[in-house]
Amino acid sequence: MSLLVQKYGGTSVGSIERIRAVARKVAAERARGHDLVVVVSAMSGETNRLIALAHEIAEHPSPRELDVLVSTGEQVTIALLAMALEEAGCPARSYTGGQIRILTDSAHNKARIEHIEVASIRADLAAGRVVVAAGFQGIDAEGNITTLGRGGSDTTGVALAAALGADECQIYTDVDGVYTTDPRVVEHAQRLDRITFEEMLEMASQGSKVLQIRAVEFAGKYQVPLRVLSSFAEGPGTLITLDDEDDMEKPLVSGIAFNRDEAKLTVLGVPDVPGVAYRILGPISDANIEVDVIVQNVAEDGTTSLTFTVHRNEMKKAQRILESLRTDLGATAIVGDDHIAKLSLVGVGMRSHAGVASRMFGTLADHGINIQMISTSEIKITVVIEEKYLELGVRALHSEFGLDGPLAGTGAPDTARA
Amino acid sequence: MSLLVQKYGGTSVGSIERIRAVARKVAAERARGHDLVVVVSAMSGETNRLIALAHEIAEHPSPRELDVLVSTGEQVTIALLAMALEEAGCPARSYTGGQIRILTDSAHNKARIEHIEVASIRADLAAGRVVVAAGFQGIDAEGNITTLGRGGSDTTGVALAAALGADECQIYTDVDGVYTTDPRVVEHAQRLDRITFEEMLEMASQGSKVLQIRAVEFAGKYQVPLRVLSSFAEGPGTLITLDDEDDMEKPLVSGIAFNRDEAKLTVLGVPDVPGVAYRILGPISDANIEVDVIVQNVAEDGTTSLTFTVHRNEMKKAQRILESLRTDLGATAIVGDDHIAKLSLVGVGMRSHAGVASRMFGTLADHGINIQMISTSEIKITVVIEEKYLELGVRALHSEFGLDGPLAGTGAPDTARA
Repeated sequence: MSLLVQKYGGTSVGSIERIRAVARKVAAERARGHDLVVVVSAMSGETNRLIALAHEIAEHPSPRELDVLVSTGEQVTIALLAMALEEAGCPARSYTGGQIRILTDSAHNKARIEHIEVASIRADLAAGRVVVAAGFQGIDAEGNITTLGRGGSDTTGVALAAALGADECQIYTDVDGVYTTDPRVVEHAQRLDRITFEEMLEMASQGSKVLQIRAVEFAGKYQVPLRVLSSFAEGPGTLITLDDEDDMEKPLVSGIAFNRDEAKLTVLGVPDVPGVAYRILGPISDANIEVDVIVQNVAEDGTTSLTFTVHRNEMKKAQRILESLRTDLGATAIVGDDHIAKLSLVGVGMRSHAGVASRMFGTLADHGINIQMISTSEIKITVVIEEKYLELGVRALHSEFGLDGPLAGTGAPDTARA
Repeated sequence: MSLLVQKYGGTSVGSIERIRAVARKVAAERARGHDLVVVVSAMSGETNRLIALAHEIAEHPSPRELDVLVSTGEQVTIALLAMALEEAGCPARSYTGGQIRILTDSAHNKARIEHIEVASIRADLAAGRVVVAAGFQGIDAEGNITTLGRGGSDTTGVALAAALGADECQIYTDVDGVYTTDPRVVEHAQRLDRITFEEMLEMASQGSKVLQIRAVEFAGKYQVPLRVLSSFAEGPGTLITLDDEDDMEKPLVSGIAFNRDEAKLTVLGVPDVPGVAYRILGPISDANIEVDVIVQNVAEDGTTSLTFTVHRNEMKKAQRILESLRTDLGATAIVGDDHIAKLSLVGVGMRSHAGVASRMFGTLADHGINIQMISTSEIKITVVIEEKYLELGVRALHSEFGLDGPLAGTGAPDTARA
């Protein structure tokens, strides 16, 4: 008998019929003898509806009150799922984040979990009840309701699994696993049976939206086996684990991630003196703009140019900040470009194999794709290219690194066929 | 500087625009220097929407989970109102029933308040903040969410006022006070400036829906001055108080209440032996059917007949129970009638004046209205008549007892003109 934590996202509980289907899945698992803690999100659309209400009533809604408001989304779902389970003869009890005592810091709208009290959950499990827990929410030390930020339900699931020492944390979603790349772009994309935490982290941070980054970090840190699988289809999904096998046996490249949400900013012709990067990026960071890829090059004339990417929505804001610094920096020009895309090869196999980067660059060159920026880590190579070449580049690399499978069949995500 | 508890019902917070209007009212009162605790209901329609969801997912929703579900209704309102107040520059903080620690018993869906912890409210008031509290909800000793049952927000308001020793508990609603009778029936109905708790209780229990009975009982018990007033119009409303003035100065009749929600059941020709009433009404009560007016008469032939009223929706059920008892009771017939109405004169002035009853019966007789049942208390006389004579009877008595005012003007409830 195992202890499983299952997490169902907004789409999986998006209607009464779907909540009932989740109840059937949970009851069947319970009937197999497993102890179950089920974490649910708000019904799809509900969180957005509540946030829209907040913005109707206030231009700058109080962060504390926003948490009070949006946390009702999951509270509705836990009640409905617990009702459906009880109606199906499966004893269940719902808990809000505050009722479990998922203690967080006080950073409203983006709180971090500090501690979870598991005594009442253990008592319920011992009494044969399924515990239905609200994802995404907690309380701080003063009893204020907090939320973990978008996608935080994954984190709740992993944190509960860690606190309870669960055998597996299963993240049910609308895709049936982690793919070598987005099947909407590459129809030969394949579901991965296994992937390491590190690879998953790189995939997630590079735009693969299957799992929230923080949840993966958390799972890696506490060594919680994490499985991504579909609410709507049968199948083993993808298991995300510590890699205790020999890296040599791993494929060179596990997957290709990409994203079009970024824009590029270049500061040209700055005198090359110490502290330039800080003087440019400090004010950007002070304005709460997140910077992703950064490259700096020195020119022959003793000047330097620095290029970095930010979220596309923040390009204008960042550009204004840089313009205001231009004279101080002695820069000759500030150039923004929002027609770029980021593309990354990810794989722990890269650690022990040289030549992946040059093979990647060669493939892109063969297809006439110019590389604007390069950034590497131990298990990842990222390039920034012109946006219109993105699909071409992804397909070429997917094929080059032997990731192509048979045509994606029924196992592929629904969205791939939308 | 006073401490006021204000309660706004579902219609008063039924839209973003109305919540904003409540925020303006509250902020204006705060600017006058008063300390304010504001209790709100769910936005109108929201509780019904949530209950409908529950019944979609389960035929018999778990009472515990139903409370988890419907309590989100007020949680949405407190957050939105607190946001609107903060946006208007009026510091505010919202609290769910659980956060305040409104401790109740564990009777889900109809819990009773046992204790309220006021420390955090006092701290907020001392810090100059408006406290926005969710009505209708609390938690039990184990931390389970409970609700007080329909209309329970009034009770929350009164209980908070009692616990805090507030100067007044103001119930804002869609009518501008308590009227001598329903202005939809009598256009000369007048708003009462004052009414006693006892009168209000009798009015409420006889069908005047302005206030929840339990809230009035609570206010009377803890001597909390209670004021009913309109969210949508200016005006002093009606103050409900202990009557410390001489009863002699009170008008004979304060108001006329009526209701058409009842049906009458008569058990005829039962042998007149001790225990008859119990043998008839015991099984009715066991079936959770509430009985209102009861009269029993003895006939000359040694038999007796007992007549009582129940909610109209429960007549058929009660009739079936009586039919099943008929042989045991030795009754000659069971007769049901759902074309009746109940009409009551209410007034503390009756205590010291004889002849009110005969004057009432005479007036009804003058208008050809037959009285089917009579029941009296110290401050109330109730009759049951044929439903079609109800309006005629109410108007005749309203005029007879000097309650007619000038034609109801702008102060009358909106519904009166609907």
